[in-house]
Amino acid sequence: MKVTVIGAGILGASTAYHLAMDGHDVTIVDQEHQGKATLAGAGIVCPWATKVEEPEWYQMYAAGAKYYEQLIADLSDRGETYVGYRKVGAVVVADDPAEFAGAGERLARRTTDAPESGGMEEISEAKAQEYFPPINKKYKAFYVPGAARVNARELAPAMVRAAVALGAKFYNDLVTLQLEGKRVKAYDGRGQEIASDQVIVTAGAWASQILRPLGLDHPVKPQRGQILHFGLQGVDTSRWSVLLPMASHYLVAFDDSRVVVGATRENDKGFDYRVTTEGQHEVLTAALHHAPGLADASILETRIGFRPAPPGFNPILGAAPNIDGLIIGNGLGAAGLTIGPFAGRQLARIATGKSAEVPLDAYLPTA
Amino acid sequence: MKVTVIGAGILGASTAYHLAMDGHDVTIVDQEHQGKATLAGAGIVCPWATKVEEPEWYQMYAAGAKYYEQLIADLSDRGETYVGYRKVGAVVVADDPAEFAGAGERLARRTTDAPESGGMEEISEAKAQEYFPPINKKYKAFYVPGAARVNARELAPAMVRAAVALGAKFYNDLVTLQLEGKRVKAYDGRGQEIASDQVIVTAGAWASQILRPLGLDHPVKPQRGQILHFGLQGVDTSRWSVLLPMASHYLVAFDDSRVVVGATRENDKGFDYRVTTEGQHEVLTAALHHAPGLADASILETRIGFRPAPPGFNPILGAAPNIDGLIIGNGLGAAGLTIGPFAGRQLARIATGKSAEVPLDAYLPTA
Amino acid sequence: MKVTVIGAGILGASTAYHLAMDGHDVTIVDQEHQGKATLAGAGIVCPWATKVEEPEWYQMYAAGAKYYEQLIADLSDRGETYVGYRKVGAVVVADDPAEFAGAGERLARRTTDAPESGGMEEISEAKAQEYFPPINKKYKAFYVPGAARVNARELAPAMVRAAVALGAKFYNDLVTLQLEGKRVKAYDGRGQEIASDQVIVTAGAWASQILRPLGLDHPVKPQRGQILHFGLQGVDTSRWSVLLPMASHYLVAFDDSRVVVGATRENDKGFDYRVTTEGQHEVLTAALHHAPGLADASILETRIGFRPAPPGFNPILGAAPNIDGLIIGNGLGAAGLTIGPFAGRQLARIATGKSAEVPLDAYLPTA
Amino acid sequence: MKVTVIGAGILGASTAYHLAMDGHDVTIVDQEHQGKATLAGAGIVCPWATKVEEPEWYQMYAAGAKYYEQLIADLSDRGETYVGYRKVGAVVVADDPAEFAGAGERLARRTTDAPESGGMEEISEAKAQEYFPPINKKYKAFYVPGAARVNARELAPAMVRAAVALGAKFYNDLVTLQLEGKRVKAYDGRGQEIASDQVIVTAGAWASQILRPLGLDHPVKPQRGQILHFGLQGVDTSRWSVLLPMASHYLVAFDDSRVVVGATRENDKGFDYRVTTEGQHEVLTAALHHAPGLADASILETRIGFRPAPPGFNPILGAAPNIDGLIIGNGLGAAGLTIGPFAGRQLARIATGKSAEVPLDAYLPTA
Repeated sequence: MKVTVIGAGILGASTAYHLAMDGHDVTIVDQEHQGKATLAGAGIVCPWATKVEEPEWYQMYAAGAKYYEQLIADLSDRGETYVGYRKVGAVVVADDPAEFAGAGERLARRTTDAPESGGMEEISEAKAQEYFPPINKKYKAFYVPGAARVNARELAPAMVRAAVALGAKFYNDLVTLQLEGKRVKAYDGRGQEIASDQVIVTAGAWASQILRPLGLDHPVKPQRGQILHFGLQGVDTSRWSVLLPMASHYLVAFDDSRVVVGATRENDKGFDYRVTTEGQHEVLTAALHHAPGLADASILETRIGFRPAPPGFNPILGAAPNIDGLIIGNGLGAAGLTIGPFAGRQLARIATGKSAEVPLDAYLPTA
Repeated sequence: MKVTVIGAGILGASTAYHLAMDGHDVTIVDQEHQGKATLAGAGIVCPWATKVEEPEWYQMYAAGAKYYEQLIADLSDRGETYVGYRKVGAVVVADDPAEFAGAGERLARRTTDAPESGGMEEISEAKAQEYFPPINKKYKAFYVPGAARVNARELAPAMVRAAVALGAKFYNDLVTLQLEGKRVKAYDGRGQEIASDQVIVTAGAWASQILRPLGLDHPVKPQRGQILHFGLQGVDTSRWSVLLPMASHYLVAFDDSRVVVGATRENDKGFDYRVTTEGQHEVLTAALHHAPGLADASILETRIGFRPAPPGFNPILGAAPNIDGLIIGNGLGAAGLTIGPFAGRQLARIATGKSAEVPLDAYLPTA
Repeated sequence: MKVTVIGAGILGASTAYHLAMDGHDVTIVDQEHQGKATLAGAGIVCPWATKVEEPEWYQMYAAGAKYYEQLIADLSDRGETYVGYRKVGAVVVADDPAEFAGAGERLARRTTDAPESGGMEEISEAKAQEYFPPINKKYKAFYVPGAARVNARELAPAMVRAAVALGAKFYNDLVTLQLEGKRVKAYDGRGQEIASDQVIVTAGAWASQILRPLGLDHPVKPQRGQILHFGLQGVDTSRWSVLLPMASHYLVAFDDSRVVVGATRENDKGFDYRVTTEGQHEVLTAALHHAPGLADASILETRIGFRPAPPGFNPILGAAPNIDGLIIGNGLGAAGLTIGPFAGRQLARIATGKSAEVPLDAYLPTA
Repeated sequence: MKVTVIGAGILGASTAYHLAMDGHDVTIVDQEHQGKATLAGAGIVCPWATKVEEPEWYQMYAAGAKYYEQLIADLSDRGETYVGYRKVGAVVVADDPAEFAGAGERLARRTTDAPESGGMEEISEAKAQEYFPPINKKYKAFYVPGAARVNARELAPAMVRAAVALGAKFYNDLVTLQLEGKRVKAYDGRGQEIASDQVIVTAGAWASQILRPLGLDHPVKPQRGQILHFGLQGVDTSRWSVLLPMASHYLVAFDDSRVVVGATRENDKGFDYRVTTEGQHEVLTAALHHAPGLADASILETRIGFRPAPPGFNPILGAAPNIDGLIIGNGLGAAGLTIGPFAGRQLARIATGKSAEVPLDAYLPTA
């Protein structure tokens, strides 16, 4: 089957990879613009602390974490070892005691059913400082050993490379869609049709622009995130746990003496690609609050991402109604790096007529 | 009248500026993406050497050069003195003697009718080296004293600032268009309507994506240009003439000890934002051929632009047929920096019911 | 006379320029490293508000401001019009009423003797907002119309270009000095001697490394400054006054819709070229305090400069004792952009046996 | 023992790491400037093809390759797995048949004694294209399976991190040296002494500036290298062999869809940190000659490095004569990434009174 995947973020890259593994003729088209959520995102794979209790959504969130184990192993078998994923554990803290207790209750309840989480335990301030050295010394914490971090800038290209190795074609371009009768047609930036039995739109915050010519009023909007990267020369951060304050921000270390702190959650900014004064100030203030040990860290860069924010809470995953050959995946929001690979696998199944592995009925695109 | 201008390149900025001077309520929306033709472009205002003889087009091309004098004076009156324009003269050369003779004939014929050109004369190798020091010593040349250079990265923002000072609003955002009956409606990245009596699309190579939801098959395609910037520390390049070989490339100096050499003309690349090995090699080879004196210059940066290339040769300027409230300006191609300000003035006239100052009938958008 | 100038910051560039104007054979050698004070610095030429009352130093500080008028005119006569200087006036404010009153007293007293200052007046909050739109609305202010701003990244290269046009030679290189008997000798990075009757070291924070092989214990140390650049797209900032809070930070606009806020004053950091978390946070907090209107501005870049901080307060300007052919200029600290051009003129005079135009005896280098 | 290591390139980082492993009190001081050879360098560990036959030097070169196995294993045991080293094999080619035959003879002779090389074999054009896909299709080749590549930007920081984990201190700063009697003293950028029993200068091309105050005329000079990085999106380059034409340039792939082509060898440029027109043109021309398949690759960046080039051919490794407490390591030139880790181990041995593992008498510093 000829499948065109528009957008090679974490969701599109995974979709293409799973289709290519299944032997399909895949074309991936991706625009090399700034502000992709995937490129900006620092991922924490630790679904068990979330305050969200909605059962179907949580089921997929947890399944996303569980699926990483298999994904990483499969990529490794294909020679992709530069994937930006590591199980480093999560240190979960909160400024407010009630928030902290709530997090503990949720973790206790949910890690029991998730052996990949490695369970959970309450740890002392000293232990928390061992797991995340720059942490605010006032924090005691819960520790979840099976939590992982993922660098989407490495994982998405790794899945694309694996797809290409399996025969997929990859282009940097901007695709436009058009209806021919009830059937969607895809055209590249030169105006040539890209022959496709199925077109899968995984274009994140840009999807509504791409879907508009089909008469669809796609509801996902961009949510701007400003994410800072801090350098700690000479320090081995490669085993540091992630730090999850029960608040808007989070802190993740990477292998190269780097800590990432994210992110603003700015709605109603449209596609305004800018690092702003108050956004930068907000993240720096949070970084120094949760991790005063970063005071002398280097500021390496600030990345801007536009998360694809769905109107309510639910993502959108499935075949578009009334249009032949169109599948849409979008709206994973801040959970995108956890759910993305698993959700891409589901899109690949749907495109090829297989049933999804979790219930997705609630997430069907509307007309 | 409420007018929304989509795209603040040289054409859109000029359109907005002229509308704002005329007292209209202008909203400019521009996406801060890479690869805009305006941001990449190094402009030479010297229409008189072109090989193109098509009369209506040449009339507009020449009018574009002539109009710069008034534009710069008006901007200066409004306090905009940082506009990136300077009359430095052009040195016109050719490797082939017949090409050279042809250029001389055209210049002689056309500069007579264009007092702003300052006429033309044949100059010696020594004189050519005086006007453009790194030039290949084999070249004798024609010299056109009234030719100018323009840095679109300074001129377009200057016109936007002037418009804003006159009351226009400016946003970084991505607009989508939709039909309501026969009328165009514009929506910002948050999905809010931007109230508009007229919508003017001056989005260059991106226009076809923006116009597709209206059922328009807009024919302008991106032509990639890779443009190199060379630094010559300690050298005052501010009075250097532009170097116009009768070939694909050109060389322009700027005030800050900088020479710009452009550009590849790459069709059929779609929106592939990349500096490529062969593109870079092509421009460097041309630079060293026409100007061996650049051998030890610093390479400062390479810019990528997507010129809006029309299908034949004609630009598109005018009201869209069958759709109310939509005006399109596009397809100026490599002539964009020369014609842009003048053409923006015409779009402003058309939007407000005035007649154009040159015949534009040949350039009407088609359905 | 053959003179070698080491370091082409504001002081060295001025020294070389004045020597070249005087007909000498000048070689300028400058290392293209990060962190030069000149490249980082946003300059305010407004000596009249300073709390420093030391008479000889203030005399030079005031002379530095006065000399700018002539310098800019001379550069313009030589075709250097891209020099980054503009008289835009200063808005002087203070959080503390006593501080504010003190500033008023000093300004009143000193501007009387300095016609180039244009005098001073107290202005209302509304007027202050007119002169510097993003200002904290609580501030009333003193206004000094003759204050100027200077962008050292444009002024220093302009003086170098003017020197080169007059015959000076410019190299990117790292010079080492050595004694031959009592005479200093300069060697370039390839180990070749640079023949010199006089060697002038204007290497700022790096001077002590350069002077050490001569047995000199040069006391100037690096003071790190982190300086932020903010963008205000669509806004004409070209006429905005500078904002001088009587505090550690200052705000300066540039022509290209840009405001610069500086700077941290970090001693005892050595040559640690890093944008740090607490430094960035400090400047952002100050920016939002003095100018809340910057909240939505873009953060364009952070520059790091190492100011050459003298041990006490006095700069060092004059011939080195006991060593033939060596002149040192250094330690202008935060006053460097104001005093630099004038001080370079004095170094040029000293090198060629003329007397200085202000008393410099207090500033002689020690052994 | 208190040891101060000046310069944390590949040699200094290794020296510090080995000293720290041996329990010494190590201070590493490194200036974060541009142009370090280590940061720029793309390393090939394949000593067996070199045309150099000088026995002592070759012994160390070969020992450098052999030692990598142990180094990487030790770093891995210490948790340093992000080290930028991989055994990918080398494809050795030559345009000239006699050159090619010569390379084959040398490889056959030398790989026999080096089991870590994995031997050698002649391979077909097709096989060469399999091992390095963009290669010029005309090349048949010799293949050396045990050759490796090393990314010094990852390896040097990994050794620094390992040293720091063992108790070493790391600073970004600029050190100056001074004699006190016959003893060397080190001072940081604030002028504070860094207490040291031994000072080890591993400052590469900058060493002569650092050693001059001690009265040493250190002969190592900077050799500029311009190195290009090419991107191949979607392509898994992680297993590509290195391409070693028997010529000035070489091609090395990295894990992240990247190929590096180096480098110019520019003597007599001093410390001129610039990407130049002819340098860029030279490397692009070589890249397209040896690997035409790079024509559509992205140009990601150009790095500038200053290799420490010794006057003849020999490096400098050992205690400085007539000065107490000073050890110098320098001049490894283009072999630096192969020899560096092993040579650092020898410097650590010398500093602590142990004998070197290979004869180093020929490399003693001179007065």
